[in-house]
Amino acid sequence: MTKKILINEVGLRDGLQIQPKFVPTNGKLDIANALIASGVKSFEAASFVSPKAVPQMSDASDLFKSLPKDNGVYYSALLFNEKGYERAVEAGAKAIAIALASTEKMNLANIRMTLDEAIINLGKIIKKAKNDGLDARAYISTALGCPYEGNVSVDRVIKLADKMFELGADKIAIADTIGSGGPDLVENVVGEAAKKFGPENLIVHFHDTRALGLTNAWVALKIGVTEFDTSLGGLGGCPFAPGAAGNLATEDLAFMLNDAGYDTGIDINKVREAVIIAERYTGQKLGGRISQWWASQERKKAASVASAAE
Amino acid sequence: MTKKILINEVGLRDGLQIQPKFVPTNGKLDIANALIASGVKSFEAASFVSPKAVPQMSDASDLFKSLPKDNGVYYSALLFNEKGYERAVEAGAKAIAIALASTEKMNLANIRMTLDEAIINLGKIIKKAKNDGLDARAYISTALGCPYEGNVSVDRVIKLADKMFELGADKIAIADTIGSGGPDLVENVVGEAAKKFGPENLIVHFHDTRALGLTNAWVALKIGVTEFDTSLGGLGGCPFAPGAAGNLATEDLAFMLNDAGYDTGIDINKVREAVIIAERYTGQKLGGRISQWWASQERKKAASVASAAE
Repeated sequence: MTKKILINEVGLRDGLQIQPKFVPTNGKLDIANALIASGVKSFEAASFVSPKAVPQMSDASDLFKSLPKDNGVYYSALLFNEKGYERAVEAGAKAIAIALASTEKMNLANIRMTLDEAIINLGKIIKKAKNDGLDARAYISTALGCPYEGNVSVDRVIKLADKMFELGADKIAIADTIGSGGPDLVENVVGEAAKKFGPENLIVHFHDTRALGLTNAWVALKIGVTEFDTSLGGLGGCPFAPGAAGNLATEDLAFMLNDAGYDTGIDINKVREAVIIAERYTGQKLGGRISQWWASQERKKAASVASAAE
Repeated sequence: MTKKILINEVGLRDGLQIQPKFVPTNGKLDIANALIASGVKSFEAASFVSPKAVPQMSDASDLFKSLPKDNGVYYSALLFNEKGYERAVEAGAKAIAIALASTEKMNLANIRMTLDEAIINLGKIIKKAKNDGLDARAYISTALGCPYEGNVSVDRVIKLADKMFELGADKIAIADTIGSGGPDLVENVVGEAAKKFGPENLIVHFHDTRALGLTNAWVALKIGVTEFDTSLGGLGGCPFAPGAAGNLATEDLAFMLNDAGYDTGIDINKVREAVIIAERYTGQKLGGRISQWWASQERKKAASVASAAE
């Protein structure tokens, strides 16, 4: 059993995209730098989509060009069409991610394509990326439930993932876009995907809408998954998926895994500094499930320092 | 795999004992009745301890005498000595629970006995209860970590549990009194205990101090455990265990298990009514991890009712 776990920070993309207050490029960089200082080695850093549809991502090119390079940190760019692909490549992206929703209606809502059209079009982008020597990851979004169509069969998710691998994807992310999945569903869907494709080729992406994010992550971990999407402070949501709430918080997952002896390479006290920076820029109170405990530990520490100083 | 899960509500005891505001007997009864209406079939209803040490439990006898009987609901009484035992029997208790802490220092803090003295004395009470035809359950408290001694070995917990079974206990509860355990530790400790004693003879008792309560419960469930202690609204703590925070919330566990197709017999919307009653009596804001999601669902429902009425 591997003990090394990769946390892919999606706060700059999935986390920020729904935030009403625009975070300027230098703010996004401040957040990224604080996360890198905490040990984060992988980011989905932005999406190259219509600035009209998602204004928060309008500076994706500037951000990508400014992110600190030559530090071993991996940055991927989410995109859905050729225009986005060209912009991402121009901005220096070395890895792309596309997202195929599991249902007809979610693809229509998210990218105005039917499921079949989406498979063809996103497949073309994957091929292009692989031809250009880029890394390509494919998300199967709404894989554990769709806000428009409800339950999604395991079979459907496996077939779509299979298709994306066939079209050249390096890794598949099983994404619970609206946090509708529980640990039993994770066992079924991620379990089946791991059997068919190998857990090392999977990423899991959970939202903590119903407080099941950590439990879902633990189940995926035990299946053998070693890469997890999370978002600092539990930032997150999707503008086209009603009901989507915050992503599983980076600090929550890193805390649970560090505590269990896994090597995430992440110092959660430093993630906290990044959360504070993100709070300043977004004007939102952020923080995962361990916030309360964390604050109580800090109060205790402060009290013991104060009493030692007396 | 059994799908029937028993939730043992400990809010009236573990939940209330640390609450500064005394909840009168009729308030405790209101909470109990609301929980029974939600489907709760098992309670640790009070502790028979010194009213000076734990004033909140001073009406244990009155409460036990007033609890609704002949409804198939199981009530246990926590106690630590013969005086408590006599009071519990006099009040009509048919089931008792004793708690043996896993460490020297925690036993001294909690019941002013060394570990060896505690084993002998609590063992005597178990024997007495079994001779009198009562059900007897033994808690191994601080089984996943002690506020005074830190880590506790798996071996120690197993030996103490073995001793308690030998002395006549019907079931053993593995209790994470201060919420210091994570899912890996649950796998080790509850896993070993299940192998040795059978999961059907175990109860698990988690605190949600570090937001790992649900994950821990899922791990125990998968080991085969079918009985879980929880507390409505996440009420809880222990006056003699610094750092203990709320118990795993009844509504959180019932929600996760119902969602996964297990049969808890509990309607979480009705648990919510009990939580509201408990908030009124304690003057505290209560609610487990799913509170936020729950509230958002209710807002949605209310909005759709309002728009249908237009």
